[in-house]
This record gives sequence, C-alpha cells and structure tokens, in this order.
Amino acid sequence: MPIERFLGKVILMTGATQGIGLEAARRVGLEGGKLVISSRQETNVKQAVTELRNEGIDVHGMTCHQGEREDRRKLLDFTVRKYGGIDAVFMSAGVSPHHGNILTVTEDLFDKTFDVNVKENFLFIQELVPFLEKRGRGSIVTNSTAIACDYGIGTLGKNLQLYAVSKFTQAAMVYHVSRDSFAKNVRINCVLPGLIDTNFLKGGVSDAAYQGHLKKMSIDPKASRLGKPSEVGSLVAFLLSEDSTFINGESITCAGGVGSSRYC
Amino acid sequence: MPIERFLGKVILMTGATQGIGLEAARRVGLEGGKLVISSRQETNVKQAVTELRNEGIDVHGMTCHQGEREDRRKLLDFTVRKYGGIDAVFMSAGVSPHHGNILTVTEDLFDKTFDVNVKENFLFIQELVPFLEKRGRGSIVTNSTAIACDYGIGTLGKNLQLYAVSKFTQAAMVYHVSRDSFAKNVRINCVLPGLIDTNFLKGGVSDAAYQGHLKKMSIDPKASRLGKPSEVGSLVAFLLSEDSTFINGESITCAGGVGSSRYC
Amino acid sequence: MPIERFLGKVILMTGATQGIGLEAARRVGLEGGKLVISSRQETNVKQAVTELRNEGIDVHGMTCHQGEREDRRKLLDFTVRKYGGIDAVFMSAGVSPHHGNILTVTEDLFDKTFDVNVKENFLFIQELVPFLEKRGRGSIVTNSTAIACDYGIGTLGKNLQLYAVSKFTQAAMVYHVSRDSFAKNVRINCVLPGLIDTNFLKGGVSDAAYQGHLKKMSIDPKASRLGKPSEVGSLVAFLLSEDSTFINGESITCAGGVGSSRYC
Amino acid sequence: MPIERFLGKVILMTGATQGIGLEAARRVGLEGGKLVISSRQETNVKQAVTELRNEGIDVHGMTCHQGEREDRRKLLDFTVRKYGGIDAVFMSAGVSPHHGNILTVTEDLFDKTFDVNVKENFLFIQELVPFLEKRGRGSIVTNSTAIACDYGIGTLGKNLQLYAVSKFTQAAMVYHVSRDSFAKNVRINCVLPGLIDTNFLKGGVSDAAYQGHLKKMSIDPKASRLGKPSEVGSLVAFLLSEDSTFINGESITCAGGVGSSRYC
Repeated sequence: MPIERFLGKVILMTGATQGIGLEAARRVGLEGGKLVISSRQETNVKQAVTELRNEGIDVHGMTCHQGEREDRRKLLDFTVRKYGGIDAVFMSAGVSPHHGNILTVTEDLFDKTFDVNVKENFLFIQELVPFLEKRGRGSIVTNSTAIACDYGIGTLGKNLQLYAVSKFTQAAMVYHVSRDSFAKNVRINCVLPGLIDTNFLKGGVSDAAYQGHLKKMSIDPKASRLGKPSEVGSLVAFLLSEDSTFINGESITCAGGVGSSRYC
Repeated sequence: MPIERFLGKVILMTGATQGIGLEAARRVGLEGGKLVISSRQETNVKQAVTELRNEGIDVHGMTCHQGEREDRRKLLDFTVRKYGGIDAVFMSAGVSPHHGNILTVTEDLFDKTFDVNVKENFLFIQELVPFLEKRGRGSIVTNSTAIACDYGIGTLGKNLQLYAVSKFTQAAMVYHVSRDSFAKNVRINCVLPGLIDTNFLKGGVSDAAYQGHLKKMSIDPKASRLGKPSEVGSLVAFLLSEDSTFINGESITCAGGVGSSRYC
Repeated sequence: MPIERFLGKVILMTGATQGIGLEAARRVGLEGGKLVISSRQETNVKQAVTELRNEGIDVHGMTCHQGEREDRRKLLDFTVRKYGGIDAVFMSAGVSPHHGNILTVTEDLFDKTFDVNVKENFLFIQELVPFLEKRGRGSIVTNSTAIACDYGIGTLGKNLQLYAVSKFTQAAMVYHVSRDSFAKNVRINCVLPGLIDTNFLKGGVSDAAYQGHLKKMSIDPKASRLGKPSEVGSLVAFLLSEDSTFINGESITCAGGVGSSRYC
Repeated sequence: MPIERFLGKVILMTGATQGIGLEAARRVGLEGGKLVISSRQETNVKQAVTELRNEGIDVHGMTCHQGEREDRRKLLDFTVRKYGGIDAVFMSAGVSPHHGNILTVTEDLFDKTFDVNVKENFLFIQELVPFLEKRGRGSIVTNSTAIACDYGIGTLGKNLQLYAVSKFTQAAMVYHVSRDSFAKNVRINCVLPGLIDTNFLKGGVSDAAYQGHLKKMSIDPKASRLGKPSEVGSLVAFLLSEDSTFINGESITCAGGVGSSRYC
C-alpha cells in the first residue's frame, strides 16, 4: 500500500527555493501536498515554482522577507486565498552575517543574527498557530543546525559560533513554545542538519575546511560525507506529516555521524 | 506520487507481536516490506502473523528469545533462507523486572535488567552488522524509552528507575556503536517512546498514576494523551527506511509533549 | 590547612545586593576577596555594602544598570581605580517581564527579555575579557536557571517559559564564547539554580505553586525543599576561584533534586 | 576567614592511591578531613598513606578490590571502627579492558567493563547509603569521564568507546539513584574529567594521539592543555563538601574546553 501523506494538505514553506527548503518542498509536493513556497528573490521563486510544476507538483510562489510582519501577513493571506487554509509550515530562513571569533562581533550583527534566526521565527509561530488551530491540527518545523551544540563542527574555520548560539536558541524556543500548542493538536519541532551540500554551506565553509573537519573527527574521510539536501527534506516531510503526531517540541539531528555531540 | 518505502526490502523485527513492535511491522509491511517477526510466545507469533497476512502483508514469524545467542542465530538463518538477506532490523524486546526504589533492587534483577535491555541488544547488533554490510547498506533501530532521562515520567508510582537507567544506557550504546558502522552505510538509531497505550505500560503504570502524572506536569489533561503504538510505529518505519539515510546514532523522543525533559 | 581562595583577588559582581548575588559576594568576601558589588537601586547597594563590611569584608558598591554600556564602563573603571584590576566576575542581573503562555508575549517584552538576559551579558563579557587577560587569568560566571531546559519547573503557574528560553540561550552562549577565551586562561561558566528562596522566586511563583510543584514531581514534600541563596553562592564561589581552573564552558545545575531534567 | 570544609568529617575514597583519587584525598585531607583510602595494590596504599601523612593528613589505608562485596564490607567496617562513621565517599575505581572498535569486543570484556564501571559502583552506593543516613547527611561522588558523551574525545586512537558507554551509564545511574536518597540529605553526584595527565590516560592514549586531538578540535595547541589531577581533585572536594548541599544527581564536566560536547 503506497502512501501519499500530504494528499489534500496545504503546506507553506519559507526559504524554500533552494537547498534543504526546496528539497523538502519537492518531497511534500510529490506526496500530494499543495504548496506555497517563498523566498526573498523573485527570480529564485519563479525558477523553483517552474521546476516543481514540471514534476507535476501543485505549487504557488511568492516573494517574502520572513523578517517583515507585513510580508508574513501577505503570505498567509495569499495561502488561505489559494487553498483555503494551512496545515503545516516549514520555515527555513536564516542568516550568518558574522564569521570569526564570537567575541569580536558588533552589536549590530549580534542583533541581526538573533532577530532573523530567533525572533522572526518566534513571531511567525505566534501568527501561524491560530491558522493551524482552525484546521483542528497542524505541524510547524523550524530549521536549526547541528553546530548549535557542537563546538567541533561549529568552528570550521572558527567562524560560525554566533550563528550556532542563535540556532541553539531556536531549539530551546521550540521546546518551550510547543507545550501549550499541543493541547490543540499543533506540534512544533526543529531539525538540526549537519554539513549538507548546499550553497549556504559553501558560503560558510571551504571544502578544505570540511575535509579537515573529517580528519579532525578521527574519521577516515570514506567514513563520512556531506549530506544531500533531500536527506534533510525527507526528515522535514516526516515531521510535517501525520506520521509524527506524537512528536512535539523535539530537535532532531540529521548529521550522518559527523556530529561529535550526543545531545542537541 | 505515492511512496512505498520498503518495496523489495527485508525487515526483521523482534518483540513485534504486539504494541509498538506490531504497529511498526504493520506500517513497514503495508509499504511493501518483506517481514520476519518474532517474540517468545508461539501463540503470539501465530496470531500476529495471521493478522498481518490478512492485511496482505508478506510476513513470516518465528519464536525467539532475543537473549539467547542460539535463538538469534536461528532467526538470522531463517530470515536469510526465506528472503535472501536482511536490510533493516527493529529490536523491541525489553524487561522491567524491578518496580520500586532503585536502591532496593537485588543484584540478580539488576543483572537481568542490564542483560536484556543492554547486552542482548549490543550482541545482536554485533551479529547483525555483517548481514547488513553484505547488502551494501542497512538500518538498525532499538527501542528505549523517554523515561530514560526524565525523572518526572520515570517515577510514576516510583517504580521504573532501574528500567530507566538501563534504557539510558541503550541510547548511549547506540551513539557510540553507530560511528564505525556508518562507513559501510549501516545506521543505528534509537526511539524513546513516552507513555504509549500498550500492555507494557498497563503492566507498569496504573491509570490513576498516569492521570496523576498529567496533573503533575501542570498540563490540563485535555492537553495531552497517551500515545498510540502506531504513532511510534511510523517513527520506527521512518528510521528503518531510506528517508533517514543521514540520521545516525540519534535517539529520538516520541512523547507528545508530556516528557518534561528537553534532552535525551 | 584552611583555605582562603580569594586572598588578593578582585571580584566584581552585578545584581549582588540581595539573594544569590549577595550570598555569592559574602562567601567570596569571607575568603579574602576584594569586592565591588552593584545593582540598580542605590539604597540596596548601600545596605548590602554596610552589611558585608560589618562582617569584615573589603567591599565597595556602585549603582549600575548592567544594560547600559556607559554604566558598565563606569563600573569597570571604578573597580580598576579602587583595586588595580579585575580577576573574576559574577553577573547576576536578569528580568522576567512576561508571565503566561509564551505565545501571548508582545514583541516589546520579547525584546526586553532577550536584551537583558542574553545580549547585555554577552556585551559585558566582550568588555570584560581584556581586563581578565591583563591579569593573566580570570573567571566569569553568569546566572541562568534550571528552568531553562525543564518544562516541569518552567511552568509553575505557566508563567516562566519566555524567561526559560532566554536563560537557555545564555547557557548556549557561555558554551560557545568560552572556547576562544580559554587560550588566555579566561574561563566562562554558568550556574543554573533551581527553586531558591529569594524575592525573585517569590515574585514569580506562589508558595502554593511551589508546594504543588513538589507534589507534581511525585516527591514527598519532605523529600525536597527550597534552596538557600548561600547554597548557590558556594557554587558561584567555586567557579570564580582557582578550584575550577579546568572547568570551562559548563552550565552547572544547583536544584537539589527537584529538577526533573538530566540535561542542561 | 579561611575555610576548612572537612573538619571533623570522615571521608572514604577508593582508587585513591594515585592520579585523580590521590589528589582528591590530598585536598580533602588538607582541609581537615579524616581519610580512609584504598586501592588493590598494597604497595600503592602504603606509599600514598606515607605521602599524605608527611603532609600532616589524618589518613588510614587498606587494600580493597571494590568489585568484591566482602572487600567492600571490610572497608566499611574498618572505616567505622577507625573514625566512628562515614560522611562522604569518592569512588574512583574503573577499568578499560577493551581498546578498539566497540563492535569487536568479546562478551567477557563487555561484562567486565560493565561490572566494574557500573554494577560495582551501584552496589557500593546501595551499601553506603545507610551509613551516610546514620550521620544525618552525606555525599557520594563517582568518577565517570568526559568521553562518555563525546565521540570526538572518545575515539582518540579509536579505542575507548566501550569504556565511554559504561561511563555514560554511570552518569545516568547517578541521576536516577540520587532522587530517593535526597530525602535523607544524602547526595550522589558524578564528575566527568577530560584529558587529565595521569597514568590511566597514558595507558589509553598516546601523546601523539593527544596532540592530534588538539589539532582535530581546531584549537591551537597553546589553547588547551592536559588537566592536572589536582584540578579534578578540587571539584571532587567541592562535591563532597557542604558547599554543594543543593547539588544532587548532577554530572559535572571538568575538561578545560577540549570537550566538544555541550551536554553530558
């Protein structure tokens, strides 16, 4: 008996025009979901929508700066207008504007990192929960990172510590926020991808740094590898679907054995 | 595009004739997997096999005491003989022979608890890995519990602490054992179910204790509920499938928001 | 051989005119430390200084709003002028302006909570490290809370979740910030007090809520108790002293067995 | 005001004739404690007793195989006979008989590792609690390791995974066992030392492996260092003393910033 977990479901995804977000969208769409995807760049939105539609996926796109309350409101209105409601949301937007020793960051970049990676997600969750409650149930998934609680990965090139702290906060936020929403069948969880082969990673870590990291971990490079965006996409789809109705407030690491930390 | 994640795959499951094990088997079977299920009691095995076959699932059953090396060997031989190899394994056997303050346990029951819940799983993993490597890839999932690292749940009636320690060990074991096996595409993960509506739970915790627990957690009883075995079964299926090829060494909690602990 | 761990050492403490901060100051002072203590209210500062001097402690006081960069600068200048340098710092300031379901908080109070509990501590650490490096070694301790990663405690009256998230962030921040500083013998750690008998607790949790909490935890009320501020003060003193020169980046829970969570 | 935290207290320490155990004994003795120390080798016991007495410490020694119930009974009887009771205990015995991939261990060595590192400590705690309760309060500290939950450290030379799993179990055991004992003012905690300059480390890890490890962690070798046994000894003394009366069930890492894992 084949399964189609998103038949009749409406799923909204931000930051979904490339990398992990795009692959999560593809998976959800291929299993029958009706999608609205967004990101900041119109060309990226158009390209992703075309690509997904070519695979037979029912998808609309919209430009949206997830950090702007007005943009978020428009995105919600658009989704409800198109499909009549919202069942699940994956929010994948995030920034890492400071590379280097965390003690050298300016207050401005500290603020920017926390605003985008923590507060915007929080405010968006606040706005989303009533929409999901209206459907009687729902699932929200945020995108953190395995480096949140792993210094070994977090210091590839010594440049991602601030990002790591903000993403750790996101996992803590999901834990606490998820409790009250569960009474109305709304679940909130978080994924912690390891080193995934995306443009985001390429921007933050050199190939040499990654190869060096593998050596650092006492692991034969053959023993590990970069993850593929679709390997996180399948986890996101699981958490958005009704296959995970008893999982709530969790942060799930998807790092293929490179993560040196047991807990996050 | 509907998915059938276990088409052509051979999955072995111990402790799979009722509760979580049975529901994991059902899910995997309904998605096309060829199953061998086992437990200690022949009548339970027969009943479960009949039930699953009635749903069109390709399944064989065998009695097996997972703690006996000879029994495990027979189970592996049987599976290979029937289906030509093994792709994934869910081991669900476990015992909780001591109820009450952990400081009052006898050495005998301490040994029994660790032998079954820790050592047997470890030895079985040792024996299984070569079979999975032969297929080029594979996934092993063990069954721990959310009470492993949560005293609040762990002391419903003050009786499950020893069980909790042994199951915590299982999560630690999975973490360390999984690292070397990943080089050959064999993944090992662990599920931590919360309070699931099973006979095992009913044996260990009274309904009054559970209702009391919900009150203890400051949660309106409407806000939570017992989990269904199938809600863990879908997590097990996810981890056994190729939807989780970049998840390794993790312990994933499935406790619906009652678990008071962020980390495990 | 009696020990006097702070002989000749200069220790700066913010939020130190009552509760945990005051008891940490007392302990450090009684073991020979030269102290500068601060808080926002001048009357509180005067009263605490008088009280400590009556016990023979070498202490100066200053009003300081830890959230104001200019105030922090003055405090640092004052300390160096009085004692010639700084060896260790305990920063205890914190706020919990929103009580109730975290999903109902306004953006203003969200900002305020994170600004005080996270960013101010971070900026103060940035400013402090060069002073400690100048002495060749040093120790910074921040004050988080055991409710950071424990929903059971965190929802006494369902009102401390936002505070909990911000304090969890503080622990994560300490972990990442501490790594680069260790090269110069500057350590940064964090304490996570449980339910301590302070005015802060009394403001946030009713006695009935606390008694209810003990019942919730399945613990006979005789089995636990509120902690005394001095019981956290002795932990802070340990971390400020050279008894902990190999402890760095850690968050240590001091919750007497009521905390239901293994990890934080 | 100098402090002498162990004046009039009787402290029992196993595995205390060298390394961390010896330094913990020295610290406790120098602060006025009456000591009984033990280990398996009579010459080691004699040498340590002589060394400590030369520093003016009140100490007796006894050979004891902590794994033998009869030996433990004799040790307890001896201590009570000499000093009239027991106030605090540090148990430091441990073994690491299997080096190499954990999947290659024999059942015999698996058993030995768990028997010594887990069960013996558990049984000893069972036997000790009544002695401490008789004094109205008490503290037990066990000796785990930072590699318990850190694969990066745990695989220096790929040889300590089994040891790591058993020591992780010890931390879990301490967490659960500590809860019921707190009602009678008996606390049980655990220390997790990182890479400490001891004979035990030298037996398990080559200097090249350690230097390699530092490089692996992206840390300039100047940025970290081996810990000194006395740096763990001061943590043990803190936990044995009444400075930690509100710390219970915790596992405290003492790894100087090399540990890459946030949680253990």
